Amino acid sequence: MALAKIRLCVDQPLGAGQSVLLTEAQAHYLFGVMREGVGTQVLLFNGQDGEWLAEVSEAAKKRGALLCLAATRAQTVLPDLWLLFAPVKKARTDFIVEKAVELGVARLQPVLTEFTSSERFRRDKAEAHVREAAEQCGALALPAVEDAAPLSRVLAGWDPARRILWADESEAGAATTFAGLAPGPWAILIGPEGGFSETERTRLRALPYIRPVALGPRILRAETAALAAITLWQTHLGDWR
Amino acid sequence: MALAKIRLCVDQPLGAGQSVLLTEAQAHYLFGVMREGVGTQVLLFNGQDGEWLAEVSEAAKKRGALLCLAATRAQTVLPDLWLLFAPVKKARTDFIVEKAVELGVARLQPVLTEFTSSERFRRDKAEAHVREAAEQCGALALPAVEDAAPLSRVLAGWDPARRILWADESEAGAATTFAGLAPGPWAILIGPEGGFSETERTRLRALPYIRPVALGPRILRAETAALAAITLWQTHLGDWR
Repeated sequence: MALAKIRLCVDQPLGAGQSVLLTEAQAHYLFGVMREGVGTQVLLFNGQDGEWLAEVSEAAKKRGALLCLAATRAQTVLPDLWLLFAPVKKARTDFIVEKAVELGVARLQPVLTEFTSSERFRRDKAEAHVREAAEQCGALALPAVEDAAPLSRVLAGWDPARRILWADESEAGAATTFAGLAPGPWAILIGPEGGFSETERTRLRALPYIRPVALGPRILRAETAALAAITLWQTHLGDWR
Repeated sequence: MALAKIRLCVDQPLGAGQSVLLTEAQAHYLFGVMREGVGTQVLLFNGQDGEWLAEVSEAAKKRGALLCLAATRAQTVLPDLWLLFAPVKKARTDFIVEKAVELGVARLQPVLTEFTSSERFRRDKAEAHVREAAEQCGALALPAVEDAAPLSRVLAGWDPARRILWADESEAGAATTFAGLAPGPWAILIGPEGGFSETERTRLRALPYIRPVALGPRILRAETAALAAITLWQTHLGDWR
């Protein structure tokens, strides 16, 4: 479900008459790959100044400039939902990042758990992935991406006002339904393929701001659980209402 | 979120004292890859006879046999939800198939639309993928997989009693909410990355059993729309209630 126009995420301020420089990669994409040139109109956003219609004023092999013509959409704010997920195999982690942008989360926090299989999480790569996904899906706001951190450390500094939806089939007995959730800041916690250790479960169960949630009778992979939980949260408390 | 035991999907009947032969691939996986052997207990299912605990009675390089010991779960039936989707790039099509099994659909019908980019859909590969996904996610029932067919032909032979949820952001104005959907047989229709042509839209709009549905303010990729729509249908009408 592609967009009519090319959308580019930039780091510079956007405004009427504002001139914007492309990165080398963006110039290569726009002029080399897409074969566009001076006069081409594209949509620009930077996560802060809304979306702007801009026209290419300079097109070179490795550089390019655009001129902001008119605002097309006002800046929006993402619903206050964070996603805490244990990095899984690269393709599936990329997938979680991409889908979190499409479905809409404000912050991505990779957490390292006892059974986390892949400890390697490249924040810079994830941030680039976030921007690409936002360009594709028409998002105006970009989720923040944190460095991977041990779950225990993340929980040690946790603000109890932000409740955590814990998607874990082993907790299904205590599960609450999304319909019953109160508005406010939330986070979704998704474990690794191996689930959480008994030590981790005991600690999580004891947290006053934890809400176990069930996601159907089948066992979902980590990335599927993340997508389903975000979708349900968005329809009940987020910007899908 | 892996299962405690190895689960294998077989084609033979399952029952008390029943002996089951493994395929060459299954024997290679169980004895070669997993290094299991005679006496190992695994879970078997075939989509019809529930789930059975079985013990390896013969283990060779390319063949193996198991003996059914006891039923562990009764056969379940999938909710009556079909997924009509336009095949997209291979990795994303594989993804749709895998997630449809995890989230739970009864039938997968690839549809070829005017803007369908990849017409190649290997039904045999998809069926193998369905079995793998079912082994992973603890499913007992397997979705049927149809050959890819033109959307027009699929609609020509459509039973009007089966309503179709049409996930298409361009129809958001006419969108109904999942909460308002009546029980009964349903299908979810997901377009290709390019969306539907105006001709297709006109035809779809005119169908009495079509219900446009909105999936949030961002533009979802085909596979994301499929997952989100299945998740919401399951929580309102399916086996996630």
